Amino acid sequence: MVTTDAESSGFLSHRSKFLCGADSPTALLERCLAAITEADPRIHAFTHVAERESRHAAAQSTSRWIEGRPLSPIDGMPLGIKDIIDTADMPTEYGSTIFAGHRPLIDAASVIALRRAGAVIVGKTVTTEFAGGVPGPTRNPWDLHRTPGGSSSGSAAAVGSGMIPAALGTQALGSIIRPASYCGAFAFKPSVGALNRGGVLDLNSQSVLGVIADDLTDVWIVARQISHRVGGDPGYPGLLGPILPPPAIKPRRLALLDYASLQELDSTVRQELRTASCVLAAAGVEMVDRTDSESVEELEGALDSVRRAASTITGRERAWMLEAYRSTNQGALRSTTLERIGETGALAQEDYVSALRTRARLRAFAQSLRPQFDGILTLSTAGPAPHGLESTGDPMLSILATFLGAPAVTIPALRLDGLPYGLQLIGHRRHDVEAIAMARWITDHLAVSFIAANPGGRRSET
Amino acid sequence: MVTTDAESSGFLSHRSKFLCGADSPTALLERCLAAITEADPRIHAFTHVAERESRHAAAQSTSRWIEGRPLSPIDGMPLGIKDIIDTADMPTEYGSTIFAGHRPLIDAASVIALRRAGAVIVGKTVTTEFAGGVPGPTRNPWDLHRTPGGSSSGSAAAVGSGMIPAALGTQALGSIIRPASYCGAFAFKPSVGALNRGGVLDLNSQSVLGVIADDLTDVWIVARQISHRVGGDPGYPGLLGPILPPPAIKPRRLALLDYASLQELDSTVRQELRTASCVLAAAGVEMVDRTDSESVEELEGALDSVRRAASTITGRERAWMLEAYRSTNQGALRSTTLERIGETGALAQEDYVSALRTRARLRAFAQSLRPQFDGILTLSTAGPAPHGLESTGDPMLSILATFLGAPAVTIPALRLDGLPYGLQLIGHRRHDVEAIAMARWITDHLAVSFIAANPGGRRSET
Repeated sequence: MVTTDAESSGFLSHRSKFLCGADSPTALLERCLAAITEADPRIHAFTHVAERESRHAAAQSTSRWIEGRPLSPIDGMPLGIKDIIDTADMPTEYGSTIFAGHRPLIDAASVIALRRAGAVIVGKTVTTEFAGGVPGPTRNPWDLHRTPGGSSSGSAAAVGSGMIPAALGTQALGSIIRPASYCGAFAFKPSVGALNRGGVLDLNSQSVLGVIADDLTDVWIVARQISHRVGGDPGYPGLLGPILPPPAIKPRRLALLDYASLQELDSTVRQELRTASCVLAAAGVEMVDRTDSESVEELEGALDSVRRAASTITGRERAWMLEAYRSTNQGALRSTTLERIGETGALAQEDYVSALRTRARLRAFAQSLRPQFDGILTLSTAGPAPHGLESTGDPMLSILATFLGAPAVTIPALRLDGLPYGLQLIGHRRHDVEAIAMARWITDHLAVSFIAANPGGRRSET
Repeated sequence: MVTTDAESSGFLSHRSKFLCGADSPTALLERCLAAITEADPRIHAFTHVAERESRHAAAQSTSRWIEGRPLSPIDGMPLGIKDIIDTADMPTEYGSTIFAGHRPLIDAASVIALRRAGAVIVGKTVTTEFAGGVPGPTRNPWDLHRTPGGSSSGSAAAVGSGMIPAALGTQALGSIIRPASYCGAFAFKPSVGALNRGGVLDLNSQSVLGVIADDLTDVWIVARQISHRVGGDPGYPGLLGPILPPPAIKPRRLALLDYASLQELDSTVRQELRTASCVLAAAGVEMVDRTDSESVEELEGALDSVRRAASTITGRERAWMLEAYRSTNQGALRSTTLERIGETGALAQEDYVSALRTRARLRAFAQSLRPQFDGILTLSTAGPAPHGLESTGDPMLSILATFLGAPAVTIPALRLDGLPYGLQLIGHRRHDVEAIAMARWITDHLAVSFIAANPGGRRSET
């Protein structure tokens, strides 16, 4: 085990240095800005870097730390904000030329919360067009010829390349877990409704705001500051739990989904998941796969219907808006977005209602499994980022957690040909603290016995 | 009974005249525009009247009717849109000087649906500041020295004065039912989530889009066109049921809430409700009050806790946004809104979670009463509109339906000193068709035996 003392890793490890002046939010920000100047011309993770405003915020944070009065555990933390999240002092363009130069009058609720907590908003990160399927300019920091994933492309690439420690993303189908997996970062997609999406373009019923970070500790402290200050989505209690990350908890029993029948998964990748599972089993976690349990078999078997129903829901919920942007400004929408409008525009209210019923049934089924399994272990993506920049990859393996409205954590524990991809832990809906605590245990455990045996992963400078 | 043939009243009664050319959407619109020109300088229901655009839309509709190809039952219907609902071709100012002249890039989902159905958008109607407690300039058409109610002030006054047949409103606590009651109009506040709020300022968890109209038939056909074309809020099936209004259904048993302990209700008003209840009882509806049933006593007794918890929920959900507008543009927010920010800004996540629990418990209780009661009969407001324009009146009697997420219909059946106020029928959540069908029966029944005996109500020309 590396550590179970959550306070000693990630941004929290800066605490004593900030207090004694050995490091400062200003110095940390300058390192980030230098990294951005060096790497972003290749990676294109940012749509806007707020040098002046972030330096001002960092200077104020530096004073607070020197005076011993930080506003929160994330005071002085440099953060990137996915560009479908409103910021009043920076352009917010939603990945679309229709909104070139657009300035909302107020910050999104999450941005308000982060600023109140003392965080330093470094800039806006690239999103796909309206957080859909059309890629932005971002490249994968591990291989510039590969996709960073989407739609939180810039947030994942900025974190995965070490430019900033953490960034906000949103997930409609796989938009947090997938790019984090491809870029070798941690990420936390909370339970549906956990973080206030006021001022975020995507208000769909399965979508959620989340955090991508280079340390597991940080995904929690950032998310928790949002819910602490502005709550969750309307009608949801919002993420609850300790302000500092919960200590590691060893799972008793996990369902293992390795999708035997899924052609997109090659045997090497499936074997890596199996190896990780073996390591956990050897440490005393009971790992249950489809051959041991009909429930696990049923979850695996649901993948196709989950993908269909989840796409129907997201498609129908977005359709009116995309169609409206198309009709007001046709030339500005790119072809894949236009095709998607064609597909989803045809969905009737009845198709949507039927997909909602499928979702309610599967959520009830997953809830009934809580006494049997503490969570689900699976892959975050079907391997490392695919070649090419014309697609952001297939979100298939991240859709289950989206559909269930369940918390998911991707742990950058797996490698293939030196490229990272994620191990995904899916928890039970509204039991986010537990999911984070188990992810902590898994991360710590694999860090010594597994990641160390896969030393290939280093960020590419190509 | 006046009629149970729903098709013969309201906008639907124009159908045969449109088809044979005896009347036309253009002629109907011109009558509305003339009424606006005559009355709106006194009433101030509109923030913007789109003469050119609405004439163009009406001309197209006229052609469709002549060709026998109307797009929907509301093709050619002149409608007003509450000004917290986005319209791309008209200013959308949210009742705030901060948004003076603001033009959204796209219409709200509901407006898109109405235009696709052929409706003629006449203009935008006055809302209170950010749909909160600060009144706009609108006056009550029955007495210009009285409030029209809020926050859908302009929609209710425009309909209640006969300027237009129907308008969209939204209800956060009592913002549809209360102004419709004060202005002598029908209104339908559907079940929570029933109508898509994409592009509406108020996305709170209890708030809902609804319809104010001078005929009960019209509240249904307008609402149903919205859900038919763009569904409900994300995650909700959306209003379902027939495209044309359901036929009248006689309720078997209704709970009667006349709030014995409520000091704000004077005895005359309580007696009017009792009289209406007697008329229904005489027609064979079993009316059950607190003396007959512990459940009814419990519902009545919950009023104080309902008001507190509902205000906590709405307050906390709005707080971040109002606070953000305050800090970016302090001078532009009016004092009552600022006071409200002070009150709700102090609410912690825990207060909110506790209020959500109260709400979930009361919703479960109400659901458990479904076998006992087909609905609840009560007042829409504690009487006619109060004197003065500095307040929009107390929403107390409309909060229960809001809190329950249940459908509510206000029927302009009651009169005091010649001023109208509403009888409120609250149905069961997601059983909106049933609520409308029962409201139809009650309306028809009271129309002959009760409203006729209260002939005082005529719109004031003072």
